[in-house]
Amino acid sequence: MTLTGEMLIGGSAVRGGDSPVHGINPATGETLQPGYGGGGAAEVERACALAAAAFDTYRETGPEDRAAFLEACAQGILDIGDELIERACAESGLPRGRIEGERGRTVGQFRMFAQVVRDGGYLDARIDPAQPERKPLPRSDIRQRHVAVGPVVVFGASNFPLAFSVGGGDTASALAAGCPVIVKAHSAHPGTSELVGRAIQAAVKKCGLPEGVFSMLFGSGAKVGSALVADPRIKAVGFTGSRAGGTALMKIAQNRPEPIPVYAEMSSINPVFLLPGALRKRAEAIGKGFVGSLTMGAGQFCTNPGLVMGVEGEALDSFLASAKAALEGAAAQTMLTPGIHKAYAEGVAKLSSNNRVQTVAEGLPGEGGPYMGRAALFSTTAEHFAADEALLEEVFGSSSLVIRCPDEATMLRLAEGLEGQLTATIQMEPEDLEMARKLVPVLERRVGRILVNGYPTGVEVGHAMVHGGPYPSTSDSRTTSVGSLAIERFLRPVAYQDFPAELLPPALRDENPLKLWRRKDGVLGQN
Amino acid sequence: MTLTGEMLIGGSAVRGGDSPVHGINPATGETLQPGYGGGGAAEVERACALAAAAFDTYRETGPEDRAAFLEACAQGILDIGDELIERACAESGLPRGRIEGERGRTVGQFRMFAQVVRDGGYLDARIDPAQPERKPLPRSDIRQRHVAVGPVVVFGASNFPLAFSVGGGDTASALAAGCPVIVKAHSAHPGTSELVGRAIQAAVKKCGLPEGVFSMLFGSGAKVGSALVADPRIKAVGFTGSRAGGTALMKIAQNRPEPIPVYAEMSSINPVFLLPGALRKRAEAIGKGFVGSLTMGAGQFCTNPGLVMGVEGEALDSFLASAKAALEGAAAQTMLTPGIHKAYAEGVAKLSSNNRVQTVAEGLPGEGGPYMGRAALFSTTAEHFAADEALLEEVFGSSSLVIRCPDEATMLRLAEGLEGQLTATIQMEPEDLEMARKLVPVLERRVGRILVNGYPTGVEVGHAMVHGGPYPSTSDSRTTSVGSLAIERFLRPVAYQDFPAELLPPALRDENPLKLWRRKDGVLGQN
Repeated sequence: MTLTGEMLIGGSAVRGGDSPVHGINPATGETLQPGYGGGGAAEVERACALAAAAFDTYRETGPEDRAAFLEACAQGILDIGDELIERACAESGLPRGRIEGERGRTVGQFRMFAQVVRDGGYLDARIDPAQPERKPLPRSDIRQRHVAVGPVVVFGASNFPLAFSVGGGDTASALAAGCPVIVKAHSAHPGTSELVGRAIQAAVKKCGLPEGVFSMLFGSGAKVGSALVADPRIKAVGFTGSRAGGTALMKIAQNRPEPIPVYAEMSSINPVFLLPGALRKRAEAIGKGFVGSLTMGAGQFCTNPGLVMGVEGEALDSFLASAKAALEGAAAQTMLTPGIHKAYAEGVAKLSSNNRVQTVAEGLPGEGGPYMGRAALFSTTAEHFAADEALLEEVFGSSSLVIRCPDEATMLRLAEGLEGQLTATIQMEPEDLEMARKLVPVLERRVGRILVNGYPTGVEVGHAMVHGGPYPSTSDSRTTSVGSLAIERFLRPVAYQDFPAELLPPALRDENPLKLWRRKDGVLGQN
Repeated sequence: MTLTGEMLIGGSAVRGGDSPVHGINPATGETLQPGYGGGGAAEVERACALAAAAFDTYRETGPEDRAAFLEACAQGILDIGDELIERACAESGLPRGRIEGERGRTVGQFRMFAQVVRDGGYLDARIDPAQPERKPLPRSDIRQRHVAVGPVVVFGASNFPLAFSVGGGDTASALAAGCPVIVKAHSAHPGTSELVGRAIQAAVKKCGLPEGVFSMLFGSGAKVGSALVADPRIKAVGFTGSRAGGTALMKIAQNRPEPIPVYAEMSSINPVFLLPGALRKRAEAIGKGFVGSLTMGAGQFCTNPGLVMGVEGEALDSFLASAKAALEGAAAQTMLTPGIHKAYAEGVAKLSSNNRVQTVAEGLPGEGGPYMGRAALFSTTAEHFAADEALLEEVFGSSSLVIRCPDEATMLRLAEGLEGQLTATIQMEPEDLEMARKLVPVLERRVGRILVNGYPTGVEVGHAMVHGGPYPSTSDSRTTSVGSLAIERFLRPVAYQDFPAELLPPALRDENPLKLWRRKDGVLGQN
């Protein structure tokens, strides 16, 4: 496919009038062609108008039709073939194996949501039958299903050019819910965005859906992004990125005449708790495993383990020695963008120059590219950590800070002081059970996912996954952006009272044509 | 029980230092004893500290224990006996039959949530079993349940002194979810609040729960209410009241270092659409039924039908004549508070003096009380309605506005222009099906509950009920404040990865000790 540098608005492709943005290969610094001209008010207006026009038709597509569309999106992305892999690698600096894996995840997400749509459990269909004989007053027939909230704006993320971008989890879950999607493409991978966008655009056409089901705009966040979030036809927003970016969108959404939900996945330092029994038995292995997780993908994951706590002593020293050895052999890796590279370098420099923080180890220096990130491990005492709020800040990349705690009680107290996180990890052995039982409730109040004896990077796409957490890890702790539960972000309940059969949606008809599990007077059954 | 005028903080009763607030009998103007001294920062601090301390224990109570507590709350409220009925009547001016019915609803809500807790479906338990042999990487065991968000602040509503106040739907659903509750009692019914509060306090004690599970404070909204919402230990807010009050709480919640959800049920004019076939066949009956709904409880319901649309012509004239006759015979009724009475009188006066609005009928004038509300029905043209935003404002009380539309297309267009509503009602006959099919999608985007051939007042407490809707009818369209779905407002998902069996919560253990319906790899089953 020849990349054109155009935006996709419904069934059309249009060139934006703003000065073009180019992808940059961060491995070489090379500027990639073509340029992508940014859109403005006219394109925002047209995309929103088309999305609003498509909404009533699209949200009432039957489960088979909607599932087929999601599967067509998956197949379309696969069918781009090697061109997609090559372009995504060039625009992100990520290695081929990683991008191939990410494509698998992206395609798998669409297919999983096709199954979710066929299952229909997300509709939470409920029927409270009429009780005409009830005293003192008869009861009406009341039925409930969830409906799509309306057109959704999705902001592509820089660190997952496939799985959290144009055709990523936010887009797949919003489309599955029955919401048209307008993607604000990320400027770091415009060519990848065009390829995936055109595949989704083609799937819309192939499935005979209204063109407004999908649009994709390029342009500045301040201009195009803000205008999309402020548009009255938009009813929800999905975003993955910085805390500053996420909170800016939250403000816009809250100040609309009609406020709307923003699902922003923002920042997390993903604490790892090394309990004494685990350290005694496995300090060396944990040190190695931890560094593997820390340096994976140049540390550019929302779930990167940026904070470690352990009780000081020989065992913690063994962990540090093992991590140091592993880290010092870790090759520098190309980071996603010049901006991310710069922010990482600054974050590491800030820690290095903090005189309450010791540098445990640095990875191998960068060679052969302009934007190489060098891993770094720091340590400090519990006292210093508690006294310095700056040490809670996320450094996006392969940097982590080990807190040497005098005892388990201090570890618990520091855990209580943490902000909301996507994940927390406990390394433990059976003899640590008592401490784990104290730690888990503290973590349940603060994080979306708790792991035992694993590492937080590598987020499974499944039905039980929670990739979310209390603020500021996300803007809305009641949700997840990965896994099938993500569909619930784009739904709201509607009740139908005493509807004639002809007017009821299929999900709520007596004969249950969709074979849904439904609650009748609160009792779950398949009738 | 002798009323003491005290606040309830955990297991204690304390007198507030602020100048006391007295209930007023709106039927007579009489001041009721005792006075209730308002609290301040110290009481807010103590209630929040106790709630936070109670949280981890309370949220992990087993289903039987928690259900027994909810049932003890119900029984405790019943056991107050006639004193509760008399005090609530005196403080609200509502007739005995209504208050008895409301007590039934209040008790029923607690019992329904006990069943919801036993059923456990609200936990949405999910298990994605490990796949150790998966290539290229093994899959971890990942499990998910919903946990309580944390301590919740509930603001009592003036118009339901039992069912939406201290022991009302917000309190019952938050307690069911596992959240400690701090009620900010409404100053219009302090004695009723004390009676119910003491019943819940006693149930906490009887069930051996931590005292911080329930507290109840009196005091000014600006002082006590705002401080509660701003407190970092509070994780969600339930509110029923004015749009000004609700949006003020939203602002406080959004500006916290950690923003939290506010579930504010605010304002709604609950449009009624009279389709031509229905008017032709039943204009007179609809007119009568409509006035019955409009004047019920002096119109002081969130679901009061404040807007009616029909196509002008003979049939609409018959409806208006029938409504006029019924309304002119409608007795004036005591309104809840002097403030509500004043606001109603002002709202009616504003409509009366609007020269684009005609007065169709007024109810009988008030006699025998200082705060009697006189019903009123107005009409205007579609053109005037579309041109005057003030006509969209809710007048809380028995006032409604009929819009004479030139045709069905205009009715549809006006429906598209409506703000978010709790309900919409369609009066229709089989010959109106085509029009109804056009109207329903428009309404689905704007309201939480759509009724056919009924009236919106009278909200059933059940599993399919939705008492919610897009902004500004509520602050969060994804939820309901009535019915069993209301529990979802106070929950968030947490995933557990590779947890040892001893550390898993019962809901997620292999042997399924709670006999929950769970999703295994997405498939629903009871194992």
